[in-house]
Amino acid sequence: MKLAEIYMQFQSDITIIEKELEASVQSDNDILQEASLQLLKAGGKRIRPVFVLLAARFGKYDISELKHIAVPLELIHMGSLVHDDVIDDAELRRGKKTIKSQWNNQIAMYTGDFIFGKAIETTTFFDNPQIHQILSNTMLEICLGEIEQIRDQYNWGQNFRIYLRRIKRKTALLIAVSCELGALAANADYKTQRNLYQFGYNVGMSFQITDDVLDFVGTDEQLGKPAGGDLRQGNVTLPALYAMHHDSELKKRIMELLETKFPENVDLTGVLSAIKDSGGIEYSLSISDQYLQKAYEALEKLPDIEEKTYLREIAAYIGKRKF
Amino acid sequence: MKLAEIYMQFQSDITIIEKELEASVQSDNDILQEASLQLLKAGGKRIRPVFVLLAARFGKYDISELKHIAVPLELIHMGSLVHDDVIDDAELRRGKKTIKSQWNNQIAMYTGDFIFGKAIETTTFFDNPQIHQILSNTMLEICLGEIEQIRDQYNWGQNFRIYLRRIKRKTALLIAVSCELGALAANADYKTQRNLYQFGYNVGMSFQITDDVLDFVGTDEQLGKPAGGDLRQGNVTLPALYAMHHDSELKKRIMELLETKFPENVDLTGVLSAIKDSGGIEYSLSISDQYLQKAYEALEKLPDIEEKTYLREIAAYIGKRKF
Repeated sequence: MKLAEIYMQFQSDITIIEKELEASVQSDNDILQEASLQLLKAGGKRIRPVFVLLAARFGKYDISELKHIAVPLELIHMGSLVHDDVIDDAELRRGKKTIKSQWNNQIAMYTGDFIFGKAIETTTFFDNPQIHQILSNTMLEICLGEIEQIRDQYNWGQNFRIYLRRIKRKTALLIAVSCELGALAANADYKTQRNLYQFGYNVGMSFQITDDVLDFVGTDEQLGKPAGGDLRQGNVTLPALYAMHHDSELKKRIMELLETKFPENVDLTGVLSAIKDSGGIEYSLSISDQYLQKAYEALEKLPDIEEKTYLREIAAYIGKRKF
Repeated sequence: MKLAEIYMQFQSDITIIEKELEASVQSDNDILQEASLQLLKAGGKRIRPVFVLLAARFGKYDISELKHIAVPLELIHMGSLVHDDVIDDAELRRGKKTIKSQWNNQIAMYTGDFIFGKAIETTTFFDNPQIHQILSNTMLEICLGEIEQIRDQYNWGQNFRIYLRRIKRKTALLIAVSCELGALAANADYKTQRNLYQFGYNVGMSFQITDDVLDFVGTDEQLGKPAGGDLRQGNVTLPALYAMHHDSELKKRIMELLETKFPENVDLTGVLSAIKDSGGIEYSLSISDQYLQKAYEALEKLPDIEEKTYLREIAAYIGKRKF
């Protein structure tokens, strides 16, 4: 089954979640309202809500309950993007102006706070304290991931383990928790919850590594922003880490190039080519694929229902996507 | 009874809360750990925890429960100060360097996020969904207050109602909720909860108006920052509102003075004197006192226990403080 068909199959429930998302960011305040709606309308694949729905098929599926899990997860994702754009000083996301560029950093900060607050408020629908614990812990871990990203910026000597822990916090955990909470809210058994968590975690890792590769090999048009942006900002990702680990001359060159006062004006063409020639892209894609295989293994352990094939399809899509 | 004696009487429980606060911001991340601890050590009166404890005396007082209410309330307060300093571009708070000046805006943003996350995580101690609802709603309202402050900056024509709504959201609500939740966690009856909420709300309004007055009449030393800072930043508070409302020439003068590109270099001595001469200080203090009287009225409706006199004492102190 193609990805579009999976979305089609859940279309009415995705629409319900979409409406709930819109309702949840309603505000008397014009700026907040406009900024939040703009974020919502900018779209995205709503992959976290889709994982919630698919995971819930392993239990008692009830959209009127599930939407209250899907909405905070998507809101946490959105809020973290807004704050992330402040850190990255990003002008564009998905080819559109970011909140911080359309308004300013302060507005972006509070729009993020507002969206996080709405995420928590939505969660109060559930009496189950486990759901609150998982969600608040996830928010904290995402925040740690972001802080680590700042701390490790321009740290060209960091090891692979630090990179992997950072992307776990930044990306993989929220996807893992989407799968887990979908199952939990549907009262699926504990083993199913754990396997879905493992599936989501590995998909998330695969996804982020692919994303980091695309920042090197994608065209400006595909990315909606200039390629090489991570490197320019001192965000050391797997392809660069691999390249610098195997070529200390290149490492020195990158350090010298980017330790200027105005890295935005530096011509990166040479080092980007060198990173591509180093084998760092192929290496990163192989690591991404290893995570994808582990995601498939977690799937194997789940009861045989049709949704397993959907999950496999989506995993393959987001782990291997070309842009 | 003097304020110090009230604090003395609750000293052992305040110490328990203090330790819990320290434990709650523990983190593997050095920056977060250092920034959060610095915030904690910077002190403050812990007025919200004290209100929780006093309010709980109207029900079944149990510190092992109450600390889980006092900690998130103080954390929400701390987190909002950190984000507030980003907005105000503040270098100093209570005479000490702010997170944003010691590190930068990005670190301050995530330290705030981290502290908010910890506030929510602490709250998961309680199964009672009402507590979650009240706290998440409070976080949202504070956020709205902050956004409104940005929106209304340099809006010299705003009316008094807008100012009052903003300080309700920014300040009064969290104090109201501290009193309310102390009573709720101690299973005091509903009427007691409402009266304590009313008490806290009115104390909070009185407190903030006094605070806004002090920004005009305090010395740099008393304030730990230069006087007139609110006006310089375009934050229109009650003394200035009153003065401009009664003197359109002064309004024009203020607008012209501060609508420059670098308001930090403008000499405000003249307009600060004019605001003081306008009667705006006396008017503001009389409004502050009206709220204080309403706080006393709310107290009257509460059962006659010794803690009523403590609450009255604290209200008088923070409503009428001279610095």
